[in-house]
Amino acid sequence: MADGSGFDPGKSEIADADLAPQGHRAIEWAREHSPVVDGFLRQRLTDGALEGRTIAVVVHLEAKTALLATVLADAGANVVAAGSNPHSTRDDIAAALVDRGIEVHSTRESGYPAWEKHLLAVADAEPELIIDDGAELTLRMAKYRPDAYAALAGVTEQTTTGVLRLQRLADSGNLPFAAMAANNAACKHLFDNRYGTGQSTLQAMLDLTNMLMAGKVVVIIGYGWVGRGIATYVRALGGRPMVVEVDPVKGLEAQMDGHVVAPIGDALPHADFVITATGGMRAVTTRHFGLLKDGVILANAGHHDLEVDVAALGAAADDVTEVRAGIDRYHLPSTASGTGTDRKRVDVLANGALVNIAGGLGHPIEIMDLSFAVQGVGCHELARGGYETGIHVISPELDAEIAAAKLADGGVTLDQLDDDQHDEISEFIDETP
Amino acid sequence: MADGSGFDPGKSEIADADLAPQGHRAIEWAREHSPVVDGFLRQRLTDGALEGRTIAVVVHLEAKTALLATVLADAGANVVAAGSNPHSTRDDIAAALVDRGIEVHSTRESGYPAWEKHLLAVADAEPELIIDDGAELTLRMAKYRPDAYAALAGVTEQTTTGVLRLQRLADSGNLPFAAMAANNAACKHLFDNRYGTGQSTLQAMLDLTNMLMAGKVVVIIGYGWVGRGIATYVRALGGRPMVVEVDPVKGLEAQMDGHVVAPIGDALPHADFVITATGGMRAVTTRHFGLLKDGVILANAGHHDLEVDVAALGAAADDVTEVRAGIDRYHLPSTASGTGTDRKRVDVLANGALVNIAGGLGHPIEIMDLSFAVQGVGCHELARGGYETGIHVISPELDAEIAAAKLADGGVTLDQLDDDQHDEISEFIDETP
Amino acid sequence: MADGSGFDPGKSEIADADLAPQGHRAIEWAREHSPVVDGFLRQRLTDGALEGRTIAVVVHLEAKTALLATVLADAGANVVAAGSNPHSTRDDIAAALVDRGIEVHSTRESGYPAWEKHLLAVADAEPELIIDDGAELTLRMAKYRPDAYAALAGVTEQTTTGVLRLQRLADSGNLPFAAMAANNAACKHLFDNRYGTGQSTLQAMLDLTNMLMAGKVVVIIGYGWVGRGIATYVRALGGRPMVVEVDPVKGLEAQMDGHVVAPIGDALPHADFVITATGGMRAVTTRHFGLLKDGVILANAGHHDLEVDVAALGAAADDVTEVRAGIDRYHLPSTASGTGTDRKRVDVLANGALVNIAGGLGHPIEIMDLSFAVQGVGCHELARGGYETGIHVISPELDAEIAAAKLADGGVTLDQLDDDQHDEISEFIDETP
Amino acid sequence: MADGSGFDPGKSEIADADLAPQGHRAIEWAREHSPVVDGFLRQRLTDGALEGRTIAVVVHLEAKTALLATVLADAGANVVAAGSNPHSTRDDIAAALVDRGIEVHSTRESGYPAWEKHLLAVADAEPELIIDDGAELTLRMAKYRPDAYAALAGVTEQTTTGVLRLQRLADSGNLPFAAMAANNAACKHLFDNRYGTGQSTLQAMLDLTNMLMAGKVVVIIGYGWVGRGIATYVRALGGRPMVVEVDPVKGLEAQMDGHVVAPIGDALPHADFVITATGGMRAVTTRHFGLLKDGVILANAGHHDLEVDVAALGAAADDVTEVRAGIDRYHLPSTASGTGTDRKRVDVLANGALVNIAGGLGHPIEIMDLSFAVQGVGCHELARGGYETGIHVISPELDAEIAAAKLADGGVTLDQLDDDQHDEISEFIDETP
Repeated sequence: MADGSGFDPGKSEIADADLAPQGHRAIEWAREHSPVVDGFLRQRLTDGALEGRTIAVVVHLEAKTALLATVLADAGANVVAAGSNPHSTRDDIAAALVDRGIEVHSTRESGYPAWEKHLLAVADAEPELIIDDGAELTLRMAKYRPDAYAALAGVTEQTTTGVLRLQRLADSGNLPFAAMAANNAACKHLFDNRYGTGQSTLQAMLDLTNMLMAGKVVVIIGYGWVGRGIATYVRALGGRPMVVEVDPVKGLEAQMDGHVVAPIGDALPHADFVITATGGMRAVTTRHFGLLKDGVILANAGHHDLEVDVAALGAAADDVTEVRAGIDRYHLPSTASGTGTDRKRVDVLANGALVNIAGGLGHPIEIMDLSFAVQGVGCHELARGGYETGIHVISPELDAEIAAAKLADGGVTLDQLDDDQHDEISEFIDETP
Repeated sequence: MADGSGFDPGKSEIADADLAPQGHRAIEWAREHSPVVDGFLRQRLTDGALEGRTIAVVVHLEAKTALLATVLADAGANVVAAGSNPHSTRDDIAAALVDRGIEVHSTRESGYPAWEKHLLAVADAEPELIIDDGAELTLRMAKYRPDAYAALAGVTEQTTTGVLRLQRLADSGNLPFAAMAANNAACKHLFDNRYGTGQSTLQAMLDLTNMLMAGKVVVIIGYGWVGRGIATYVRALGGRPMVVEVDPVKGLEAQMDGHVVAPIGDALPHADFVITATGGMRAVTTRHFGLLKDGVILANAGHHDLEVDVAALGAAADDVTEVRAGIDRYHLPSTASGTGTDRKRVDVLANGALVNIAGGLGHPIEIMDLSFAVQGVGCHELARGGYETGIHVISPELDAEIAAAKLADGGVTLDQLDDDQHDEISEFIDETP
Repeated sequence: MADGSGFDPGKSEIADADLAPQGHRAIEWAREHSPVVDGFLRQRLTDGALEGRTIAVVVHLEAKTALLATVLADAGANVVAAGSNPHSTRDDIAAALVDRGIEVHSTRESGYPAWEKHLLAVADAEPELIIDDGAELTLRMAKYRPDAYAALAGVTEQTTTGVLRLQRLADSGNLPFAAMAANNAACKHLFDNRYGTGQSTLQAMLDLTNMLMAGKVVVIIGYGWVGRGIATYVRALGGRPMVVEVDPVKGLEAQMDGHVVAPIGDALPHADFVITATGGMRAVTTRHFGLLKDGVILANAGHHDLEVDVAALGAAADDVTEVRAGIDRYHLPSTASGTGTDRKRVDVLANGALVNIAGGLGHPIEIMDLSFAVQGVGCHELARGGYETGIHVISPELDAEIAAAKLADGGVTLDQLDDDQHDEISEFIDETP
Repeated sequence: MADGSGFDPGKSEIADADLAPQGHRAIEWAREHSPVVDGFLRQRLTDGALEGRTIAVVVHLEAKTALLATVLADAGANVVAAGSNPHSTRDDIAAALVDRGIEVHSTRESGYPAWEKHLLAVADAEPELIIDDGAELTLRMAKYRPDAYAALAGVTEQTTTGVLRLQRLADSGNLPFAAMAANNAACKHLFDNRYGTGQSTLQAMLDLTNMLMAGKVVVIIGYGWVGRGIATYVRALGGRPMVVEVDPVKGLEAQMDGHVVAPIGDALPHADFVITATGGMRAVTTRHFGLLKDGVILANAGHHDLEVDVAALGAAADDVTEVRAGIDRYHLPSTASGTGTDRKRVDVLANGALVNIAGGLGHPIEIMDLSFAVQGVGCHELARGGYETGIHVISPELDAEIAAAKLADGGVTLDQLDDDQHDEISEFIDETP
């Protein structure tokens, strides 16, 4: 424990310590399939740079995150953890972490107010470094714990949304430390969104519903990295994506990728599924309810729980029922449904929270192995110091080392450039006067 | 004609002026399917900025390039043109351009020395602006026409290779004007490489050979934008890509995209087709010939004619025969083939020149409509002035206007962000001390 | 209860009657997404043909099967049910069926001997008609209850394996009734295997493991309808299928579909996953263990639990541990692993039972809506009588009606042939002498 | 020459005998990539069964067909050939065949009446066996040369349309010989339509137009084997298929394959391209012209030249112009276009003939290697005799031998079933009473 910090495993707030064995088993499975975190990163941390440092880990608290936390702890760090979303914590994992000597403040069922309280408990441990997701802890420390905030040595951030928030802090002159935009590393955003989000979002939706993707019309709102990853997988599984976008370049990419591009008003009436992926708020809200088909299924794949405006849906509905685990049905009366005729059923997955995490298993292990390697390397870099105040990305060399470690584990060998493969024609440039 | 410049259509060197009607027809077909160049760009050039300016267009001389040249000429520019490759000029197109009053120095069959001469003839027209491809004219002016080079108002460049060459000029302190990296605009590289190169390269290879892609092993050397576009289409058509890469991040992307990744020595023995896409030199050369299967087919998709080292192949062969239009067969004796046993047939497409251009129709029209809109807008920006010496990219706003023009022509409507879709949670940042 | 038959809901053997409400909810969700069974079939059964008939339903006992059973019961049939596999029954569904007045003999956890006993209990209800899966009940009645077998009015059969077994019964002169090969109807085999098996098998494997498909080598043993459905989805999700086949036509199809085709000895050492889909026995058994990679994951998608020879694995292992829910790890000593060096981990999903059912949710609802419509229509046809002894398929007209009902529910309209679209050239055939 | 037959190479009617060297070169290229016809078939024909038999080959006369003809001639047959379509003959190939001693009646440019005359000239050679395509020669012999028709030893037929026509002959009691439905062999229809037609149709369309497939809406009329092959490739290349079908099962398959299914009236207004694949007549005719977009491109992939009703288009147009090689533009006046407003451009590829043959290179060589192996084996079987009058298919064993020969050439090894892989559970059936 760092002197003066509040770090103390005994302070942990979790649901059930007896779940630890189950949690340990899940973490062990994740470890076996995480060669980069368990190998490359673990080796890199042996230099003692994390020894005795207090590190807050505020990412969805499940097995892959727990593996990262234990690797940091094995390197001598005092780790204190909470979930980055009030609905995504696995209680068995939380128990296993506490059993390992990590301070945890998180439970799956306690809801928003408890989640806020847990984040502040982490803040009160006065971490020197944060591994954050959505900048959820960083923002709260900036606002509610300004002294501890000012003392931070650095933050590494997982998501697009979180990096935008850090940028807003920096723009307003209120980012007094070095931050690592893990999201901007190649080994994070090139893999996580394209392969991980697509697979895991579809998997969660199909698991929750036991439905078939072939032949379904899926309206995807937002064609950033997340939206396009989902659209690729929808199309691969025989579905028909309709993309809603506001940016012309992204819209043109969506069209060239073979998807229908349409304004939301034209798209929604065709939707069997609607998936939000804007990174903003209220992509589907009151003015859209009248456009939805009876029986439509809504899911959210963006950072916010509020892309699907469940509050507005609840206000419009005359009845809300859980019709299947993870599926709430909002019955909209004819007036609210806008058709003037029939009552309408709108089914929402995972309460509008990130469907692949709150309603599924989160990203595949191999994807988080890459992402958490980036986070771990970034945290280690910040701990070693030498970065100026502001937002950084790990160096291309480190990025490449992570990719190389992953390839090496898979037995993949790359080629080497030979001397005679350079661009000869440009050599004569050197002769020009 | 700009005073003092060498511009003069009468000086043109082309194969056959009588082919003009056929050329006009091809350009008209291209025009009909180029709404952005023929609409948005044409409209943008009406401000008179190009009036009387001498512009060199040194891009593969076929119908789409010719459309760009005529739109520039219609805007009042004096256009002088040559091909960016000695094998890719269409003689009917050259004739049509001369008929339109454009000075052209290019013929399809005259080979390398004539091509070099033609480029210098264009240089001698003393252009103020260059629309270049591979920086072929720019490099030659730097070396052989230093005074005209020093007087240039600007260059816009089409390719990755060309931008790298401009960068080398800049690094060596020898880029005394503003350049536009057209390749770096979203409307160029996001579309050209992913959709255009993939389709047109496969199309050319299948046309030249009348072969089936389903079930074929295709070794792709280089997994940049070009290589991955090709790999995507190979896989889409039922082929099995094997990717050779030196960069770990690109190698990992290739693996996640479902391709086999292997060093060249492991990959070549499996190849039915080999496609080079490195942007460098001699990707397949003497040390590889022994690894090739009897009957393998080699094609190049990179900028250089020398990625497939046809000179070395010729030196190793005991016989070279054209076995089909566009297919040369190199018979390698048993010693050169390295197996110590049999003579081996190696078939090379389009003499190792860019296969989709020298052996096919080049990019689809719609792709060049976007790319040439970027080139035309870049040239117009440079003509209007105000850019500092160095390498620039057109602004994101102009990029978006091009994409929007393309979407609008296709009748696609985008959505609009509503006020309540911003990220509320970060609002409280403003309150932090 | 039919006079003289043993049908009696009160005789049911299930795990926990209190689970009925949860079961009812699951059946209701299935009903909402089964327009053909709940609409077209339900309507077709209103003619009274099933009134008072005893029908055995021996199909994996989960929500979709339960819906079929209730629709039959609603039409007046006495339904008695058991599972077609000892590991696939959902206890909540069984409870809901009993609550609905259906006799059920099945529990999830009781294993093989209990399953055999349950099947005989169903036989003792003396059904007139069987809706069977794998001919599991039919075979047992033929052997153990010959009098009741001889009295059967008909059987409809779900699977390829089951139809082959019925054919063997017929070939040996021991099929004394009309049977319907539901599997051979277009609305069954064209959809179930291609879309249903592919999606649900991948979904189950990825859910059980939380792993990524992109980049994985998946050895698929057998390229019948099931194997090719799986291979299509593996490739769609970025995996690399290697197919093992014994039939040249199927092997060539696999190759043209872009997959690697290889003998099992060459394929297994590359496998990250192995999926068996032969319909036979012991596709992976003792002689193959030495070829497997450490950490390989085995799953079965064929009818038999014994395609992955778990008994032989157990005999070879020095330790077996459940490392994650649904994943058993067999530790093979160095001698058994054949490498002479290291101990090896082999992970088996769902104990080698059908992975999409025993380890997942079974087929998507929409697929079973089609398959069970075929089964229900076939059963109704047999109940109405008029079919000769032997194996039949529902008529193309009935097949088309099922497809039309599904399309109509999705709002899809087909086209109509116009009179002038026939093949005129062949008309003059009628004039020939 | 068979005694009494009219076979005589000297009677040949071709365009230009001097083109033979070019034709030989093309046939040689085809031979190199046809291991099954050049190896397996050639070997099988060494039994002398074709010695001295007169065989008519009436298939599109290009290099792959010519290879089959020469292999038959090498086996001692007297081969007489004509094209199966008036627009698809390659004059260089015809010249090479005559140079080889084969009697040919065909020229590319002479049109319908000459084609009919050429077919009768082949009939007058009194062939004993026909290798037919669309039953074009068989039908004409039945009508115009009844005696020679009655004397036929057999016919093998290439296409779905042709087999239907033979069936109509048989149904009317006018098929007095054994016929082989080559189309129904696995090695023909499983490969030709799925892989060959899809690739070659798209290739021809993109070559003729130099357009991009990504983002295009392609209306495909007919979802038989041809239509679905095309739809698969359209989707693979980033296009968006809309399928028009009259059969519910095929319509449902199209929907599950991820395509939009709609009646022709709803589909046509969205079409960038329209492809007919019905096997019938007038799929796009007068009543549809008003629904087409200005600038739409029409192509035919079915057997008939009249699926796109070019005669009706010509009658409706006020102007027809060839705007590019292989592209005719029909200008429809506002009245004909039905919109009451603007004149409309409708572009037709390859004059409505089979676009992949008349406007492209035909099927890939590897596909025809399989199809012609089936035709050659079928012809050989008929020559050996022993088949009853009526329509046959080559045996599954021969089918498998062809596939095995193709795989063996590609170095692919299949697996072998082991004794212990049979279905043990069904063994006890033998014990039942």
